[in-house]
Amino acid sequence: MFKGLSAFPLTPLSEAGIDFRAFTGLVERLVDSGVDSMGVLGSTGSYAYLQTHERKRVLREALAHAGGVPVIAGIGALRTRDVLELALDAEDAGVAGLLLAPVSYQPLKDHEVQALFETVCAAVRTPICVYDNPGTTHFRFTDALHGRIAALPNIASIKIPRLADDPVEAATRVAALRASVPSHVTLGVSGDASAVRGLLAGSDGWYSVTAGLFPEVALQIVRAVGNGDEEGAIALSVRLAPLWSLYDRFGGIRVMACATALLRLCGEDCLPLPLQGLRDGEREEVEAVLGGLGLL
Amino acid sequence: MFKGLSAFPLTPLSEAGIDFRAFTGLVERLVDSGVDSMGVLGSTGSYAYLQTHERKRVLREALAHAGGVPVIAGIGALRTRDVLELALDAEDAGVAGLLLAPVSYQPLKDHEVQALFETVCAAVRTPICVYDNPGTTHFRFTDALHGRIAALPNIASIKIPRLADDPVEAATRVAALRASVPSHVTLGVSGDASAVRGLLAGSDGWYSVTAGLFPEVALQIVRAVGNGDEEGAIALSVRLAPLWSLYDRFGGIRVMACATALLRLCGEDCLPLPLQGLRDGEREEVEAVLGGLGLL
Repeated sequence: MFKGLSAFPLTPLSEAGIDFRAFTGLVERLVDSGVDSMGVLGSTGSYAYLQTHERKRVLREALAHAGGVPVIAGIGALRTRDVLELALDAEDAGVAGLLLAPVSYQPLKDHEVQALFETVCAAVRTPICVYDNPGTTHFRFTDALHGRIAALPNIASIKIPRLADDPVEAATRVAALRASVPSHVTLGVSGDASAVRGLLAGSDGWYSVTAGLFPEVALQIVRAVGNGDEEGAIALSVRLAPLWSLYDRFGGIRVMACATALLRLCGEDCLPLPLQGLRDGEREEVEAVLGGLGLL
Repeated sequence: MFKGLSAFPLTPLSEAGIDFRAFTGLVERLVDSGVDSMGVLGSTGSYAYLQTHERKRVLREALAHAGGVPVIAGIGALRTRDVLELALDAEDAGVAGLLLAPVSYQPLKDHEVQALFETVCAAVRTPICVYDNPGTTHFRFTDALHGRIAALPNIASIKIPRLADDPVEAATRVAALRASVPSHVTLGVSGDASAVRGLLAGSDGWYSVTAGLFPEVALQIVRAVGNGDEEGAIALSVRLAPLWSLYDRFGGIRVMACATALLRLCGEDCLPLPLQGLRDGEREEVEAVLGGLGLL
């Protein structure tokens, strides 16, 4: 389940509410795309900004429109009680997997994060992916903690943060984590810019923001790696460097929101305030980059 | 309003709900204590972990039990729509001031934070304190941004993060910020360990976690500074070094939760999971430190 390419679509919304029509449109684009799974209500899916009842509805809309593509649902929240409610609801709704980040306001201690995962693992039967994203949660996992959590029942994968661009460093990181967790737990990379490095280093999958809107370009990279075409895979990723650069400058969610609007798949303002969409010159830059890559 | 000593009490709670009896007990302890204001639903008051309806009720309980002490309410939230709802509700309820932090999940851009404050400033008539707390929000204000926000209508104060222990560095920091904001905007220090440095450097107030439970020890420091007794003020703060050390190691909220329980003012588990209270040896350390300081 937590292998290959997992696509993370945006949840378009405005101050008036979630744009379910646009959201289900994005989900349907992924159905025959060839992605192995889709991750709804990930960071790019604005899970952290939605109320519990909104998240339950988004998930049901995704499941109703996902065709045969397995759906992974983000269940992270600041409080354990909310995580549990979302986990049980997602399981009832029929998700294939759960994605859980240790969201924080007060900095969390290792034993608190471990207890959070113990509580959720004991409450569900659905496989769980540990979402390691220090850029948003500000929690830093040690490999020892990853090892303890990965040994819990129902833990099936770890979504690891962006790897170094340097191939040796990336491979060393993947190998170190691999050595710390049980062999049945898959490792999937995030950070699209260096995903090819993770795949070449033997990670099992790619949790991809880009694939949420442009599954083909991500699939090309995954297939090249699968065919043993290391040079080709790297070249495909390098070709996308202008896109990776936009992510670095503006944040992936703002670029994807802009791109989705440029494709007329959602309205101009589709992020939860205080997050703002890109404007004027920034928007034109995104348009130029996507146009240059043949993505518009 | 945003001057002198402002005390920030805990909001004791459990998975079963908020312990309103314990909370109002903490509020009532502050009524005749001599503090200049109280800040409810601050970071130590767990605002980030509570639902909107819970926060509205906590605020009303505080106002009903605060006697003549002005109440400042934390109104931070991940979404602008929730901040606005909380701001208008707090104003309706009769608070003296609002405390607004740029809470983040996706890292925020300067113009997004500015727009958040513009929106709230335009919607209320109540004075607002800008809550600068990079340890929890992970947003770093520049002085230029502080200057632009401080010039907005209704902005009355900035709650600044912990200053350096070094007196020259602390004074330089306060002076630099002072030079960046209008003169009617007060500066109040956080980070109890170095609060005395901020007060001696001429900041207008102290937003204090310690004062939420032990107003006397904080007031002694404030009064010594007010009397021009620099050495005495520093000595009072140095005497509390074992307490500051506990904050550093365990986080202020966990220490205050433990101290509140040791004083039998709330139950043993009074933090929102995944945050856990201190246990066994850690709890005994807190007990020993507080006992040694005559605070139990």
